[in-house]
Amino acid sequence: MTQELIRSIARSTSSKIILLVLDGLGGLPDPRTGKTELEAANIPNMDRLARLGVCGLSVPVGPGITPGSAPGHTALFGYDPVGVNIGRGVLEAVGIDFPGERGDVLARGNFCSVDRDGNITDRRAGRISTELNATLCPLLEMSIQDVRIIVAPVKEHRFVVAFRGTGLSPDITETDPQLTGVPPNPVTAISPQAAKTARIANQFIEISKGILKDKLPANMVLLRGFSQMPHLPSMKEIYQLKPAAIATYPMYRGLARLVGMDILDTGTTFEDEIATLKKHYNSYDFFFIHFKKPDAAGEDGDFARKVESIEEVDRSIPAIVSLKPDVIVVTGDHSTPAVLKAHSWHPIPTLINAPYCRTDAVTEFSESACLRGGLGIFPAMHIMPLALANALKLTKYGA
Amino acid sequence: MTQELIRSIARSTSSKIILLVLDGLGGLPDPRTGKTELEAANIPNMDRLARLGVCGLSVPVGPGITPGSAPGHTALFGYDPVGVNIGRGVLEAVGIDFPGERGDVLARGNFCSVDRDGNITDRRAGRISTELNATLCPLLEMSIQDVRIIVAPVKEHRFVVAFRGTGLSPDITETDPQLTGVPPNPVTAISPQAAKTARIANQFIEISKGILKDKLPANMVLLRGFSQMPHLPSMKEIYQLKPAAIATYPMYRGLARLVGMDILDTGTTFEDEIATLKKHYNSYDFFFIHFKKPDAAGEDGDFARKVESIEEVDRSIPAIVSLKPDVIVVTGDHSTPAVLKAHSWHPIPTLINAPYCRTDAVTEFSESACLRGGLGIFPAMHIMPLALANALKLTKYGA
Repeated sequence: MTQELIRSIARSTSSKIILLVLDGLGGLPDPRTGKTELEAANIPNMDRLARLGVCGLSVPVGPGITPGSAPGHTALFGYDPVGVNIGRGVLEAVGIDFPGERGDVLARGNFCSVDRDGNITDRRAGRISTELNATLCPLLEMSIQDVRIIVAPVKEHRFVVAFRGTGLSPDITETDPQLTGVPPNPVTAISPQAAKTARIANQFIEISKGILKDKLPANMVLLRGFSQMPHLPSMKEIYQLKPAAIATYPMYRGLARLVGMDILDTGTTFEDEIATLKKHYNSYDFFFIHFKKPDAAGEDGDFARKVESIEEVDRSIPAIVSLKPDVIVVTGDHSTPAVLKAHSWHPIPTLINAPYCRTDAVTEFSESACLRGGLGIFPAMHIMPLALANALKLTKYGA
Repeated sequence: MTQELIRSIARSTSSKIILLVLDGLGGLPDPRTGKTELEAANIPNMDRLARLGVCGLSVPVGPGITPGSAPGHTALFGYDPVGVNIGRGVLEAVGIDFPGERGDVLARGNFCSVDRDGNITDRRAGRISTELNATLCPLLEMSIQDVRIIVAPVKEHRFVVAFRGTGLSPDITETDPQLTGVPPNPVTAISPQAAKTARIANQFIEISKGILKDKLPANMVLLRGFSQMPHLPSMKEIYQLKPAAIATYPMYRGLARLVGMDILDTGTTFEDEIATLKKHYNSYDFFFIHFKKPDAAGEDGDFARKVESIEEVDRSIPAIVSLKPDVIVVTGDHSTPAVLKAHSWHPIPTLINAPYCRTDAVTEFSESACLRGGLGIFPAMHIMPLALANALKLTKYGA
């Protein structure tokens, strides 16, 4: 089923959809209790949504595939997570709300340390402070031929480089050898149209080396993840929606911006996010609400904190329900089991609560209950068509 | 999800995977008991693997499609069973460990009987003995122009012909009219580049007819299934595995060889196969163990013998478990219900046992229990990505 088909039957209506994404929601059992984080959490409000809704387990990319944040979210937004390629440079840029332009070649940069012979001694320049980083980046801004090079600090040793000009291509190799004791690799073109970009990137690196020569530990740069902003059809174009994103982390705001969502200012807690939802509720018909904490706790291997973060969301569910949205979806972009301390490939508990959802026998929101749900085990790309259908925003297909 | 994606994220690690294939595992209920062969079998060890693992029903090719051995196994090895075309000639050749070379055009041959007018009287030459076959085949070896023709006996009236030379193509028609009372069909080219092959095949047949003229009942040959070895990327290339195959039947060794597995010498029983596994356990990180008996019993319509063959495997499961592999997969290449006496289209009970598999509520290994398992009903092509993920051999996909 393609987005083209959905586009051909989507219509604008007054109904409203809320897509609530608990980052890293899915988990694995604590060996001592046999319960996952979600199963251990006390979540009467989500249980109620599940009981009245229809549940399943969503698969972001494919069986066995552990998704990064970008494919996890493109799938949730209804875009083919394999066909849409969001490079590391782009992701780093959207993660700092970098004002990228179409055609920019973006890269993730590291300040690093090199010795007198130019061999890398520390790929992260001793993790210099973000403040120092912010003073170094402006020194590296320059123009080479018709290409303007913009350098923006991220955090510690990390920065974003944008090459802005005509005829640029991201088909160039990375300079980071992922090793110490060797010099950075030169950039080489891997397609004929990338010759200019490779040449300019190498010149940028050479000039930067000169600029940084007395700045040990940050006396050199490494570049990787050269990529261009993907040109995606917007959610407005495909779904006839007026969508908004509420997210405390810039990366998720950036991913939402790539598909044409308006980005709403919000605070740092889930309560703040719900306050933002209330404030703008009348202005949009689709809200993507992103909550980062379950993933962060999972990555830290902190089972209890992940449980608490899920409970934190549950306490605000009544505030969402009281707005009377037509469709509430609760899901995640991937699993992040605390026992793995990492993203994982496991399917994600997902519920769709709506008046005509055809509810199933599921009475609680959990991995094991969702397995017996009415949605089965299904690709995450199907969530948007299902949400739209349940909001009665899709017309009949075919005569 | 493509093999390209898997290839891009696979990494070599020290973890080990065992893929145990019970040929024809799936079944149908005995009408008297309502239990399938697997459900009737006493298999405490497989039940235990299922209880601690995650289960499902795998579909080799598609709903309603009854697979032959070749597509059944290509799917299990993670290759598209429809995209990968293994012709009958190739299958016959790999089935006798024939040392095929890239570019060989292989065909399955039959000795047949013809009358004075050249009309076929018996398509199988009265099923001559394998011994007689073995004396006739060498008589037919010859060279025509730059093409060497190698003829290798199989069983009874069957043999393999390999045309080895430059510029050959398998795009030629078969000679077997599948009828008696008519002469064999001439070979004709069905693509322009096959003209040479067609001419040489016809010359080979004509010369063979002369050689065999006094050998009634085996006084003529029929050729079909012209095909070339598919060039498949190896499991090493795609999965970064060092794979080995343990199989008592040559056809399965041949299929494993097509995807680059090392073939380990073994005996004739499942115990022999497990002894082989133990002997080579340290030298590989992936073992395909093939056990033929359940399929053979199913084809014979012998329900009880199929039950026994499954129990035979179960008795050796502890020996496998004691090696502490990271992932154990137990599945089949297709169903072979004794009540049908044939391969069938029914999904196949499949279990994956691994520390991070996210176990389900299944407590026994059976068709009915697997239907409620955490893997759902899923394409057999997904088994390899799932096994690799569970062995922590796949890195994150996407930024």
